[in-house]
Amino acid sequence: MPAASTRVPQQERSRATRARLLEATVDCLVEHGWSGTTTTVVAARAGVSRGAQLHHYPTRAALVTAAVGHLTERRAAELRAEADALPAEADRLDRVVDLLAAAFTGPLFVAALELWVAARTDVELRTALLPLEARIGREMHRLTVELLGVDERRPGVREAVQATLDLLRGLGVANLLSDDSTRRTALLQAWKTQLTALLAATDTAP
Amino acid sequence: MPAASTRVPQQERSRATRARLLEATVDCLVEHGWSGTTTTVVAARAGVSRGAQLHHYPTRAALVTAAVGHLTERRAAELRAEADALPAEADRLDRVVDLLAAAFTGPLFVAALELWVAARTDVELRTALLPLEARIGREMHRLTVELLGVDERRPGVREAVQATLDLLRGLGVANLLSDDSTRRTALLQAWKTQLTALLAATDTAP
Repeated sequence: MPAASTRVPQQERSRATRARLLEATVDCLVEHGWSGTTTTVVAARAGVSRGAQLHHYPTRAALVTAAVGHLTERRAAELRAEADALPAEADRLDRVVDLLAAAFTGPLFVAALELWVAARTDVELRTALLPLEARIGREMHRLTVELLGVDERRPGVREAVQATLDLLRGLGVANLLSDDSTRRTALLQAWKTQLTALLAATDTAP
Repeated sequence: MPAASTRVPQQERSRATRARLLEATVDCLVEHGWSGTTTTVVAARAGVSRGAQLHHYPTRAALVTAAVGHLTERRAAELRAEADALPAEADRLDRVVDLLAAAFTGPLFVAALELWVAARTDVELRTALLPLEARIGREMHRLTVELLGVDERRPGVREAVQATLDLLRGLGVANLLSDDSTRRTALLQAWKTQLTALLAATDTAP
């Protein structure tokens, strides 16, 4: 076993260690919240030594920011793959909204919200998080434009996409303490009709 | 001075003590977040003895839940008064949306969000908060229907009001770490047009 392990290149092992740390961080945020997500707890959960953890992510803020950044990228890639797998049918918009709504009620949203709220009163975390917030905001917007297959240069499209994401964020918060899926499904049904009309309206704009 | 103080009826003094505790609680949540909002800190901030604090609110969960519940009611009353003071003009919907948006980016929203997020991983707080969540949800919905002066029995009105509140909640979260007001103003401009159309459409429904 050790012989096999040493054949794995160092770089590869480092990447695997980082991946385990980042996943353990998000799991920890989901299960215990920000206050329960200490670097010690995460290292133990990931099965990584304290030394290795400190080597890769020297601070708690660096660790949690990297975790949410990394997993957001992975989730975005998954969303692209899921959207690519959708049949090229008329209800594409509906299915894309459903995919996004699932993301905004999933564990990664919950982990991110833990950080956002904690960062409000934690200067170190806020400093680490602000560039990530800007990046995630841009990425989610670009991803939504891409998944919906709309042209942002048309008037109204940018606002319609933004409103969709802000609405989904609000619905994510409404789902924190209790299962809000029945209300959410009905509301999104109405929103899909509205969004379809909004995007169609911009098609006919001059 | 003591002679004057003893002439204040006990009930009145109790009410004043509770009000000071509840306001100090929300201030504390805004400034220090959930983790920094202990009953000891709140009692000190309110200038109330530990004994009196424990007498009125025996647990931390009881204190914070009462605080957000009480201040939400007061804020709702203020919103009604502000809406009543609006000139009876055509842009009433715009002004009402602005009033609500201010509420969803104000200190009370921030304090409530601290509790909602903390309650996710704190059973005692969640148990205390769930009935309040349901009540606030109903109250905010009813208030919005009332301020907009719309008839919820018409098809689509309920969903339009819900979407407005969920959108505003999402915008509130987007404003946590940085000033999102420029983007929010532009987005709400588009939303007001859309909401006006939605509510007008339901007016002409059979």
